[in-house]
Amino acid sequence: MAKTRDKTRTKTRDRARKAKTIAEKRKDPTKRSPAASARAAHDDKEVMALKLKPAPLSSAMADLFKLCEEKLGFVPNVFKAFSFDMAKLEGFVGYRNSVMQGESGLSKVEQEMIATAVSTQNRCYYCVTSHGSAVRGLSGDPILGEQIATNYRAADLDKRQRAMLDFAVKLTVEPWTVEESDREGLRKVGFSDRDIWDIAAIAGFFNMTNRITSAIDMRPNSQYHAMGR
Amino acid sequence: MAKTRDKTRTKTRDRARKAKTIAEKRKDPTKRSPAASARAAHDDKEVMALKLKPAPLSSAMADLFKLCEEKLGFVPNVFKAFSFDMAKLEGFVGYRNSVMQGESGLSKVEQEMIATAVSTQNRCYYCVTSHGSAVRGLSGDPILGEQIATNYRAADLDKRQRAMLDFAVKLTVEPWTVEESDREGLRKVGFSDRDIWDIAAIAGFFNMTNRITSAIDMRPNSQYHAMGR
Amino acid sequence: MAKTRDKTRTKTRDRARKAKTIAEKRKDPTKRSPAASARAAHDDKEVMALKLKPAPLSSAMADLFKLCEEKLGFVPNVFKAFSFDMAKLEGFVGYRNSVMQGESGLSKVEQEMIATAVSTQNRCYYCVTSHGSAVRGLSGDPILGEQIATNYRAADLDKRQRAMLDFAVKLTVEPWTVEESDREGLRKVGFSDRDIWDIAAIAGFFNMTNRITSAIDMRPNSQYHAMGR
Amino acid sequence: MAKTRDKTRTKTRDRARKAKTIAEKRKDPTKRSPAASARAAHDDKEVMALKLKPAPLSSAMADLFKLCEEKLGFVPNVFKAFSFDMAKLEGFVGYRNSVMQGESGLSKVEQEMIATAVSTQNRCYYCVTSHGSAVRGLSGDPILGEQIATNYRAADLDKRQRAMLDFAVKLTVEPWTVEESDREGLRKVGFSDRDIWDIAAIAGFFNMTNRITSAIDMRPNSQYHAMGR
Amino acid sequence: MAKTRDKTRTKTRDRARKAKTIAEKRKDPTKRSPAASARAAHDDKEVMALKLKPAPLSSAMADLFKLCEEKLGFVPNVFKAFSFDMAKLEGFVGYRNSVMQGESGLSKVEQEMIATAVSTQNRCYYCVTSHGSAVRGLSGDPILGEQIATNYRAADLDKRQRAMLDFAVKLTVEPWTVEESDREGLRKVGFSDRDIWDIAAIAGFFNMTNRITSAIDMRPNSQYHAMGR
Amino acid sequence: MAKTRDKTRTKTRDRARKAKTIAEKRKDPTKRSPAASARAAHDDKEVMALKLKPAPLSSAMADLFKLCEEKLGFVPNVFKAFSFDMAKLEGFVGYRNSVMQGESGLSKVEQEMIATAVSTQNRCYYCVTSHGSAVRGLSGDPILGEQIATNYRAADLDKRQRAMLDFAVKLTVEPWTVEESDREGLRKVGFSDRDIWDIAAIAGFFNMTNRITSAIDMRPNSQYHAMGR
Repeated sequence: MAKTRDKTRTKTRDRARKAKTIAEKRKDPTKRSPAASARAAHDDKEVMALKLKPAPLSSAMADLFKLCEEKLGFVPNVFKAFSFDMAKLEGFVGYRNSVMQGESGLSKVEQEMIATAVSTQNRCYYCVTSHGSAVRGLSGDPILGEQIATNYRAADLDKRQRAMLDFAVKLTVEPWTVEESDREGLRKVGFSDRDIWDIAAIAGFFNMTNRITSAIDMRPNSQYHAMGR
Repeated sequence: MAKTRDKTRTKTRDRARKAKTIAEKRKDPTKRSPAASARAAHDDKEVMALKLKPAPLSSAMADLFKLCEEKLGFVPNVFKAFSFDMAKLEGFVGYRNSVMQGESGLSKVEQEMIATAVSTQNRCYYCVTSHGSAVRGLSGDPILGEQIATNYRAADLDKRQRAMLDFAVKLTVEPWTVEESDREGLRKVGFSDRDIWDIAAIAGFFNMTNRITSAIDMRPNSQYHAMGR
Repeated sequence: MAKTRDKTRTKTRDRARKAKTIAEKRKDPTKRSPAASARAAHDDKEVMALKLKPAPLSSAMADLFKLCEEKLGFVPNVFKAFSFDMAKLEGFVGYRNSVMQGESGLSKVEQEMIATAVSTQNRCYYCVTSHGSAVRGLSGDPILGEQIATNYRAADLDKRQRAMLDFAVKLTVEPWTVEESDREGLRKVGFSDRDIWDIAAIAGFFNMTNRITSAIDMRPNSQYHAMGR
Repeated sequence: MAKTRDKTRTKTRDRARKAKTIAEKRKDPTKRSPAASARAAHDDKEVMALKLKPAPLSSAMADLFKLCEEKLGFVPNVFKAFSFDMAKLEGFVGYRNSVMQGESGLSKVEQEMIATAVSTQNRCYYCVTSHGSAVRGLSGDPILGEQIATNYRAADLDKRQRAMLDFAVKLTVEPWTVEESDREGLRKVGFSDRDIWDIAAIAGFFNMTNRITSAIDMRPNSQYHAMGR
Repeated sequence: MAKTRDKTRTKTRDRARKAKTIAEKRKDPTKRSPAASARAAHDDKEVMALKLKPAPLSSAMADLFKLCEEKLGFVPNVFKAFSFDMAKLEGFVGYRNSVMQGESGLSKVEQEMIATAVSTQNRCYYCVTSHGSAVRGLSGDPILGEQIATNYRAADLDKRQRAMLDFAVKLTVEPWTVEESDREGLRKVGFSDRDIWDIAAIAGFFNMTNRITSAIDMRPNSQYHAMGR
Repeated sequence: MAKTRDKTRTKTRDRARKAKTIAEKRKDPTKRSPAASARAAHDDKEVMALKLKPAPLSSAMADLFKLCEEKLGFVPNVFKAFSFDMAKLEGFVGYRNSVMQGESGLSKVEQEMIATAVSTQNRCYYCVTSHGSAVRGLSGDPILGEQIATNYRAADLDKRQRAMLDFAVKLTVEPWTVEESDREGLRKVGFSDRDIWDIAAIAGFFNMTNRITSAIDMRPNSQYHAMGR
């Protein structure tokens, strides 16, 4: 498959290499250049590097896909990737919902900030793209999204959010060194034990998805790039 | 809470420090020394470092706990830890089952080898203990379990299993460097794309649980230590 | 100064934390939310964390600043940061021009791809922002810019550009391991010794600026974020 | 030699792969499964990956080997590995005794805890196996042994032992960063300068043996696995 | 070219391998052994691994080269390496002078200590050699030079110089973690914001040159080795 | 003690800081500057950071010390450091001799190259100083000594010596990844299994001494710095 993909994009690249001076400013930002269109089309069509045939959607999953189309305008590729096996897709969606959609002392933006900071640490293209867009969208602040997606230490966060991301990133890089003093640090800036669970669960969740998407080269839907700008 | 735990074990430690010569061989291996008993009792009672009150078990989860008692003799602490919120427990159990219990080209031992190698890389006490015991039990070979739990490169594996663990550990350490050539490496030793999914999904899953358990200091049930020896 | 900055932004953050559901889509993307406006205003005004008084611009530097205003609409903060000392500003600008603006076998996009990949490796907020925008603008392909700014391995590059970025990133991470075989690798995909100089010089240059900007918390002009989208 | 080893164990592995359900509990833990027997036999017979012919034992070394047989039931493979040259074996044994058997402010268990924590950091199969068994045996607490052999931070240690292992592991990972403040940290929890010497000497010693055994693939005698359980 | 170099030195190496006992002390330290002479001749003649033809020197650069010959007795190879393009050489020299030769609150020795500590961290043969010699020469203390060139933590520095090198090395290893607290640390030991700029600029500069010289295998002039001893 | 040392050297440092221009060339290289003299005197007098009282020398050790004085002009501080306990000193000397002085397929220079390359990797001031001097002395080539003490990859080594140092340094950095293929690599360039033992034993030995000397801040005798130049 890799070869097929190479062929499809040869022209794209050739064009890109010819661009030697500052590109004339595109007048209409919603119109993509041919290079960008080709790249976007690829990511939207080839969901991942594994050839796994989609199974028929269960009725619950058909409902989910329909909802995505209505609310986002597209079905996130992560759902499409899992759809070769309904049990796996439903298991994943159920767990994700329990991690990201229950009651929480963390705001939605904070949850997405953890997702993005962890994914940036792991240099995960799919997750930085999709969750970076969520930080931009939920905060109404595209610059905050860029900062978390590059180096969260460059963002001007309050002590609480900073401690939250420091914990999540330490847990990502050296989980074996996390100890009571780290939990105490979170409690001192106001997090409850219940909140600590959520920080751990979200950081853990994206350490998982980062690895699955990297392992199979899952491609983010091209729409994410423009969302929340 | 940390302080309470410290007090409870002071005597244990004092005794341990006095032991200056090779301990007289314990005649009956099923009888633990007082030091070991205290340590085991702790791990079996204090499930994690967060104070979260268990919720009433849903009927499905009550069935699961009963089944665990019957088959293992105990309920794994990971289930107890999640039981402060039935939605989270059910979400976790459902996803875990979809990852670890469906049809797979990987044998059960191989799945547990991935779990253990990933957890060893992350130096996760809970998961090395519980899944190392599974490798011992499923393979009938305690030495194999020890090898995977120390350095899988020390085990005498065939090319297929070795490539599988190399991939899982690379994905654990530097997920951002995993590429088509790594997937090709797996295909060359006989793994299908469907198998690659499972390797990725299992490696990802334990990169998640390793971090959750480290974040909250989840303690492995003491029974795991003796299983499969 | 740090304290002053903290006070200025408290309101911004409070607002961000309240956002608990998906933000209503902003109708006009050119209008920033109040949170974003505050953040952008800060970056555009407080150039860096060091208090150094700008010196009067020399006539050459005044010309440069005027040119920037005309072509970009703003003077890049890196120039403002150096402007406390005309000798240092002129030294920097002169060297930068000799590295980035002479004749080269590398296209402009390729030069900016090196700048961005190196800066991403070093998680440098200023340089990823400014040079990521250049990749987007020069290639006419915003997705390519995002890919290089997250993990260049996720971009679909030809062998030549891939080898170029592999070399630049290896040189960034472990310069002491770069050897003749690495140079041979570049020659094999078509780079001349003169090209290798440029790859080395550009990768070296951004390893320098990444560290200067991180050391002094240099803030990227807010306009970069929207350029080339 | 590597090939010969591969052939010998092919059957073992094939059997292991077939095990698809939880192994029926072995009734008699002293009876190994065929897989385990084959693996154990290998480690007990092939001491290392280098082909070096044993020299005739000097009388002192013959006494040592006899003593080992009497007290342990076997001669540790590390002694067999060195026995191709009596001067080297005697030099090693003499130094080891001076490090591990003299008067010390550290208890025997503490010495073995350092040995195990260092060896775990270096993921050394031989040394984790043999010294992990010593921690189990000397403390009478198999769980403590498992904790040190996985992640010493998971063990409930007093401040003194914790500082001791923190120092030993820092010295293992980044010796160049150890400074007066680290020594002061040991003094504060009660260690004398003489104790600090011992901690350093033991940590240093196992950083050596870890590397020798990894370099030559020294195999631990199979008996270690069952000791102290 | 690499092959040519190999052939030239074969004899040198053969001789070196024969040296089996402590070399008779050379009576006259200014006379090099044949092995050393061959090695020195190589480094003085083959400036780098890239084949780039020197351009005619501009009059300013001819003056610089003449000055070097007069003051040092040789033209540093770094200048020779850049001399294939006068614009690049002049750009480099101009920037270097602005970084290293302007007014500064740092003494010359301190500037060279930063250069050497950074280059040692990056294991850069050219820069450790040339700037280590400068530390020796400027301080009149060869031992200090050796210490900085091996591990600056081994030198007995005052708090100010120690903080300066800690900052420079942290900036070298993990620039993304440098923050306000690090700058505050420098201010506390007496550095002004202007001094912090210089520390950052010098550390940045050598992170650049280290990478350029490693990328092209730039060889230090042999004279550096003896200077300041 | 640390404080006492600080006081003793204050003047030294103050003087060093005043040196603001290139030091006038010292006419007689054998005469040290006052700064250098103070530094050297310290290292020669204060052997280590631990206060351990020397024990009376056994007759064998008295002979060794006398021999050192005769052949080197001084007793290496490593021997003085161990001399608080004759059993430990004799154990160390005996083992060292068995590693470094027996028959070997490695030349003396090669043995010292391993010692120096390993010590440089570990940034060990004592060992780089003492063994770097041995490489200079034994090879008659001070430049080779500098190269190994900075980055052995910068030295122009033959394939055999290069493979030897690659193995030793890999064993130093990531011993857990060393495998049969690494040993095969050594065999391919001509090393016997007996030679591999020596490479492993020497690399292991210096991984030990590097850590002991770092742990106790052992200072190299000042004479080493001038030897073999």
